[in-house]
Amino acid sequence: MSAETPPVYDTLLEHVTQLNYVADAGGLLQWDQQVMMPEGGTPARSKQQSALSTLHHDLLTDDDLAGYLADVDEGSLDPAQRAVVREVRREHERARKVPRDLVEQISETTSEALPVWEQAREEDDFEAYAPVLEELVELRREYAEAIDPDRDPYEVLFEEFEPYLGLDTAERILGRLREELVPLIDDIADSDVPQPHPFEGTFDVDDQEELVRAALDDLGFDWGRGRLDTSTHPFTSGTQFDARITTRFDEAKPLDSLSSTIHEFGHATYALGLPDDEYGTPLGDARDLTVHESQSRLWENHVGRSKAFWEYFTPTVENHLGVDVSADEAYGAANRVYDDNLIRVEADELTYHMHILVRFEIERDLIAGDLDVSEVPAVWNDKMEEYLGIRPESDAEGCLQDIHWTNGTFGYFPTYTLGSVLAAQLYDAAESEIGPIDDAVRDGEFDDLHEWLTENVHRHGKRYTTDDLVEEATGESFSADHFLAYVTEKYRGLYDL
Amino acid sequence: MSAETPPVYDTLLEHVTQLNYVADAGGLLQWDQQVMMPEGGTPARSKQQSALSTLHHDLLTDDDLAGYLADVDEGSLDPAQRAVVREVRREHERARKVPRDLVEQISETTSEALPVWEQAREEDDFEAYAPVLEELVELRREYAEAIDPDRDPYEVLFEEFEPYLGLDTAERILGRLREELVPLIDDIADSDVPQPHPFEGTFDVDDQEELVRAALDDLGFDWGRGRLDTSTHPFTSGTQFDARITTRFDEAKPLDSLSSTIHEFGHATYALGLPDDEYGTPLGDARDLTVHESQSRLWENHVGRSKAFWEYFTPTVENHLGVDVSADEAYGAANRVYDDNLIRVEADELTYHMHILVRFEIERDLIAGDLDVSEVPAVWNDKMEEYLGIRPESDAEGCLQDIHWTNGTFGYFPTYTLGSVLAAQLYDAAESEIGPIDDAVRDGEFDDLHEWLTENVHRHGKRYTTDDLVEEATGESFSADHFLAYVTEKYRGLYDL
Repeated sequence: MSAETPPVYDTLLEHVTQLNYVADAGGLLQWDQQVMMPEGGTPARSKQQSALSTLHHDLLTDDDLAGYLADVDEGSLDPAQRAVVREVRREHERARKVPRDLVEQISETTSEALPVWEQAREEDDFEAYAPVLEELVELRREYAEAIDPDRDPYEVLFEEFEPYLGLDTAERILGRLREELVPLIDDIADSDVPQPHPFEGTFDVDDQEELVRAALDDLGFDWGRGRLDTSTHPFTSGTQFDARITTRFDEAKPLDSLSSTIHEFGHATYALGLPDDEYGTPLGDARDLTVHESQSRLWENHVGRSKAFWEYFTPTVENHLGVDVSADEAYGAANRVYDDNLIRVEADELTYHMHILVRFEIERDLIAGDLDVSEVPAVWNDKMEEYLGIRPESDAEGCLQDIHWTNGTFGYFPTYTLGSVLAAQLYDAAESEIGPIDDAVRDGEFDDLHEWLTENVHRHGKRYTTDDLVEEATGESFSADHFLAYVTEKYRGLYDL
Repeated sequence: MSAETPPVYDTLLEHVTQLNYVADAGGLLQWDQQVMMPEGGTPARSKQQSALSTLHHDLLTDDDLAGYLADVDEGSLDPAQRAVVREVRREHERARKVPRDLVEQISETTSEALPVWEQAREEDDFEAYAPVLEELVELRREYAEAIDPDRDPYEVLFEEFEPYLGLDTAERILGRLREELVPLIDDIADSDVPQPHPFEGTFDVDDQEELVRAALDDLGFDWGRGRLDTSTHPFTSGTQFDARITTRFDEAKPLDSLSSTIHEFGHATYALGLPDDEYGTPLGDARDLTVHESQSRLWENHVGRSKAFWEYFTPTVENHLGVDVSADEAYGAANRVYDDNLIRVEADELTYHMHILVRFEIERDLIAGDLDVSEVPAVWNDKMEEYLGIRPESDAEGCLQDIHWTNGTFGYFPTYTLGSVLAAQLYDAAESEIGPIDDAVRDGEFDDLHEWLTENVHRHGKRYTTDDLVEEATGESFSADHFLAYVTEKYRGLYDL
């Protein structure tokens, strides 16, 4: 190789960082659209986004990158560099297999589906939505077949969001949760223990904002590399240099904005813990949705819904909301099981996974062709009754409630549960190294936990596959044991079972 | 041509809109950086911006576009389409002539120059800055020579910002302003008329923000397609769908935030008046800096600094700032000539142009090689004394005050003055069609003026060259007469001359 020719790996990396910078620019446009953009801006923003998507897709699938991937000598690379090539190759090959027409058709159909879904949900009219859903299922099936015609198409779709754990693992874990949580939820429904509800009344939105900002201060959010804003649906967006949280406020539900903010704080810590000097490479990018969700759930539930947290934080709540409440009462309120709740995003930590199970089983069967779109409402309601003992009276409160399918997203839902399961496993592993986390939380000390997560999860980016990362961080393979032990102990305690 | 082959013009247009969408995405990233981004975000943002710039440059200079421009049959196009081709060809050819290395070198040098300039300004140390300025002058000279080795390099640079009016016109107009305004400014300096200053004291920033929002409401700002935020340097960014204004507040200077907001409102009306269905094409893009500045200056000065405006707006000011002031006093304060002011951005409507003249004459001679960088401070100070009768005591208040040269920008300054001159010409043309504007302004009626400007300026985008646009809108060629008549009458009145 002459001195002027850069090694293939460096050229490949340069190409990859460029395409990731474009993706992050698109991420900022999306953040802006949901947080800052005046409503009139939509037509221009759609065109800008679509231009960036096209450029990104071109860079990801072009012959230059194919050439670098063919020419790179993996034997000469160190393990981190091989991980980069593994991740780039995977993304490149998937994207290259999907015909451009199909990508555009999916993009157009999802755009058109959005207002149809919104109206159908508003008018509780599943029939108006059914043709759109049918089309989206069909397009995603074609998409999966383009990537791999020989495999279960749902498995292929699932791997878009969780590439390494395997659908069999997801099915096994969700199956165990169904087996063990349904009886627990039944017991709770039968329990006579009254749950306190000390946050009745209305709470000024400005006071709530001060409260969640105080929580972020306490948890150690780095305001020099992040923001907090409001949006219709809370989300986190950004990079290791600039991670932005959103939340939303409901005057009647101050605990919701708090727990949602702590959830997003968890996502943001992951982004901010990625290595600066790998920005733009897979080593500087989050592993996947399972791991991302493990970070948000760990902070939201294991920290933010712990007794210890409320022992620490109750004075701050009193201070901002003017509520006189004991740590026990607040802990009870933050963990109350609303056994009549039909809405996933309002579910508690326990019943949440039954909502996921309903969606997972339905979308898996839809993609497999084992379930007809017209049957979705009845199957949805039957499963809700079976797993949660409640039956939606309308599709608006049933199968029309979530946006995911309308976005053309199938295979995403399971990662919510996998993330919760991983959160419990990571929490236990952290505790075995840094000592009792509850004690630290009770003192408002979150740094050791934060550092353990950065050291064992964040700083690796995509260096390890998901399963290897779990092994590296916890010393054992991915398992539901920790999660089941955690919720069983917690809820048996709360409900005196 | 077969039915499947799109006409070359359509393909060209598709290519051009893509590149403009990318440019607008970059504009949003820039807006965000100045308004929303946490300070830690800079490294990632620089990389994202640079990736978008590279893609934009590639699209603008690539062989595809060269081919479309070579193949397009201009004879078959209508005048608007020919205007599109004219504008695209001009931009494409300029960009293609500049070697990529030189573009990158300029970009790197300006990045490195910024902290050097900031420190030099802070420490009043021109010598520390001189080598950087020398390098930037040299690079821009090379840049101009790459575009056209046979012409005055300053002329070539000037055309980057004002492509059609011609440097000779700019020189002629600036020359007339020097001739006629220097004596007027001398007379004012000698005048005994005391100028009122009713806005002494400090004014709460929140009250000031309410005031400028009230002004934007009154002027008819479309909040559904725009925003107001704060930033270190006020600017306007965006498109016909989403035009965003920024302002800044100084507790001691409530008139500054008001006039700066009205200035930016003028820029925003131009963006918002561009045709929606031409978004992404040159017909949906602002003509150039001269015309843009004419819109901001027209609203800032001819409306916002008029006696009629203060007759209308004084109660609103009283209401928000709690100042008891007459329309006459407010008008006087808004137009006070600060004859000891050394700073361009703090200058009044009249002396402002002498500040421009100083910069224009110096940068023209620098690029021509007729002035050595080391001579800049002395020449600057001499010219300030000659044109304004004041002499800076430090370079920080002299030739180090503006960021433009450090940005590698030479040839930009004259467009500020050309914009003011055009504002006066457009104002008179509007008045001759819609009747006395003062009467409308006094009643808080701004719609007729706004509509006239949209109809005669905004909606044309880049359809006409600057000189043709002036002819179309005003029925005469570009001229300083209106501006000189306007300022002479106004200031002779204010200073009893």
